[in-house]
Amino acid sequence: MAGLSFQALPGFRDFIPRECAIRNYLFETWRSVARRCGYVEYETPILEDTSLYLKKSGGELSAQLFRFEDQGGRDVTLRPEVTASLARLVAEHQRQFPKPLKWFEIGQCFRYEKPQKGRGREFHQFNVDILGEAGPSADAELIALAIETMLAFGFVPGDFVVRVSDRNAWIDFAGRHGVAETEIPDFLGIVDKIDREKPEVLAGKLAAYSLTTAQVRAFIADPANASPAYLAIHEDLTARGLGEFIQLDLSIVRGLAYYTGVVFEVFDSKKSMRAVAGGGRYDTLVATISDGAVDLPATGFAMGDYVIRNLIEETTHAAMRMEVWLQRNAAACDIFVVVADESQRAASLKLVTDLRRAGISADLSLNPAKVAKQFQSAERSGARFALVVGTEYPELKLKILASRTEETGHAQSAVEWLTARLLEPDGPLLA
Amino acid sequence: MAGLSFQALPGFRDFIPRECAIRNYLFETWRSVARRCGYVEYETPILEDTSLYLKKSGGELSAQLFRFEDQGGRDVTLRPEVTASLARLVAEHQRQFPKPLKWFEIGQCFRYEKPQKGRGREFHQFNVDILGEAGPSADAELIALAIETMLAFGFVPGDFVVRVSDRNAWIDFAGRHGVAETEIPDFLGIVDKIDREKPEVLAGKLAAYSLTTAQVRAFIADPANASPAYLAIHEDLTARGLGEFIQLDLSIVRGLAYYTGVVFEVFDSKKSMRAVAGGGRYDTLVATISDGAVDLPATGFAMGDYVIRNLIEETTHAAMRMEVWLQRNAAACDIFVVVADESQRAASLKLVTDLRRAGISADLSLNPAKVAKQFQSAERSGARFALVVGTEYPELKLKILASRTEETGHAQSAVEWLTARLLEPDGPLLA
Repeated sequence: MAGLSFQALPGFRDFIPRECAIRNYLFETWRSVARRCGYVEYETPILEDTSLYLKKSGGELSAQLFRFEDQGGRDVTLRPEVTASLARLVAEHQRQFPKPLKWFEIGQCFRYEKPQKGRGREFHQFNVDILGEAGPSADAELIALAIETMLAFGFVPGDFVVRVSDRNAWIDFAGRHGVAETEIPDFLGIVDKIDREKPEVLAGKLAAYSLTTAQVRAFIADPANASPAYLAIHEDLTARGLGEFIQLDLSIVRGLAYYTGVVFEVFDSKKSMRAVAGGGRYDTLVATISDGAVDLPATGFAMGDYVIRNLIEETTHAAMRMEVWLQRNAAACDIFVVVADESQRAASLKLVTDLRRAGISADLSLNPAKVAKQFQSAERSGARFALVVGTEYPELKLKILASRTEETGHAQSAVEWLTARLLEPDGPLLA
Repeated sequence: MAGLSFQALPGFRDFIPRECAIRNYLFETWRSVARRCGYVEYETPILEDTSLYLKKSGGELSAQLFRFEDQGGRDVTLRPEVTASLARLVAEHQRQFPKPLKWFEIGQCFRYEKPQKGRGREFHQFNVDILGEAGPSADAELIALAIETMLAFGFVPGDFVVRVSDRNAWIDFAGRHGVAETEIPDFLGIVDKIDREKPEVLAGKLAAYSLTTAQVRAFIADPANASPAYLAIHEDLTARGLGEFIQLDLSIVRGLAYYTGVVFEVFDSKKSMRAVAGGGRYDTLVATISDGAVDLPATGFAMGDYVIRNLIEETTHAAMRMEVWLQRNAAACDIFVVVADESQRAASLKLVTDLRRAGISADLSLNPAKVAKQFQSAERSGARFALVVGTEYPELKLKILASRTEETGHAQSAVEWLTARLLEPDGPLLA
């Protein structure tokens, strides 16, 4: 509406009810998968001391920060990600929890980027981490969760693949080819861009390390270069029946400097350059953030809401699953009470109250209205049933809105009757 | 931990798992009550144009704002409340929704105040609003939700009361006593503090309007001054069986200037000065925010997480209800798989995967460990059952951890067996 004085800031979203219901679908799916895989939920503050992020990332994100001085003169930042906060929190509280910690968070993050399709200045992120276990069994457990998340959204084999790599394989490669340890981060930066860099630029950069593009590509292509950690992960996931979802892909190193070992990305199989989620080991971060006070190995991954939502909407079977959820969960109510006889308004109010108290979502028109108009409100509310309170009260009529069929019942047993009725599938809706 | 370099900012909370579970209990209760009363969820941005808040509040909140300039030079503010954003959002989108809108939001707000017990610099707020209905039936519907929320938390009659007032009663009073219309906001400000002001100061302030404290107190004390809206609300709530929860209390006017009619507060009956929630009519706000483009009457209320949590924890029956929820929902898993024979690890991984896929929360030790240690992990996880995979595999042993009893089953039918088993109450836990 062009004439309005106020609008949302660029890159920020207004979640009107359907958008909010889609958000809730993502959140509830994330939460239920994490819970059934034995992860517990935590949450860190949205605002943190800026130096926490600078210390973690070495400045990698600093150009994109929503950073300001608060009224107390503190240099503070809206969180661009949650792993730094997690490391801070775990360093402080870890002694009270048995290891490994399997923790997840669903939270909003903020980055000052140019808003574009599929990317805003805020986004929601599903973060899952295992801390206190250095072995590949933790990486496998984490990748299993990433796979289960995709399956829970209705994706099937062929829709996605998890590409798994190990920075340690590259560190071995670098050692064998005389790349100094201090140069490894820069070298990994070149590998990270291998498919996006112009061939001559790539060759020039590798030449500085006395390497050729062919050597690097040959290393990537040879399955014999799989690290012991990768092989253990593959064996573990195969035992779980999830082996078909992972692939060795040594071209994946992940950009951020803080990764230390196994790294992986969940890829959309149709648009091969699009990563839906990514993560890996960051065994030194807790020690870095706590200045060495606490040392805990860790592995984690994150999935953002923009990409997964787009992928769901582009994939018919996943989109239909979401739509079924929305139909069940985004209706304003399940039972709309139609007051056909205004002298029964008091009885209708009591009936609505009783239904609600019993856990049934029920509503009615707040003011007297023609019966036809109330039925229209019932249809618009998304209710399955219209419950008519008329001159026959305490006898009630129940209209099944999808099939236009009718049943009768009694006000005194309305709660039991309608609870049972709501538990029955009614053909037209679920067909 | 004093030695750590980083801590949460003052007034900001780290939600470690138990704290996060309590937060989730509040959120899920709020959400389920709102949904069964026919409200739909929305969410507005955490960051907004500062002028939105200045326009709404006339500067009342401006000293407490987390306000800064973003990288694009915009004057922006972390939301101190959500009603201004709601008015903005509704002005833009209302045409696509039938009226009245019954909307709710659960979101975090930020105010730069001195942190103290029961108040931080961030808090979560449950906001519920009805827009597009000017009559008292909407106020009654909203107050009914406030009452149902308290009942859902386990509070009972006697724990709380909703005090209802009407600014229009005071506007009538002011008119009858020669208070000019432009002076009404100031006059209401005096009434708002009537029980907190020193008697001589109060008398002095009222004298400026040629009024005495006795006159004002007599007006408050006389039930004949109940407004027609109050009487309609009382009749409506009495029909619902909720009449006992409300009281006329004309001393309530609510501080904020934007309220226009019926106002109310939910009070803890034991500490009478503590309001758990409050709200009222704000019929002109949407027009103010939209510069007159959209005019929608509205009524709403908000409940913050700090006070309700404290009240729950101080009230034994409400605290026990929360504890039961936490036991059921904050466990890391329901079934902990104990790998008693390491040669069955692959089978155990498959079993855990199958259980999880079927919606059962299941976990296992990631690495080989002594059986006693795995049982310790099972206990610590909060699981109800330990499922032992040993040399008898595919026969499985199920240990009920609370009662130390044992059952046996078969791996091939584990999902059906354990789903059924989880649906049964097991005496010791629920007794």
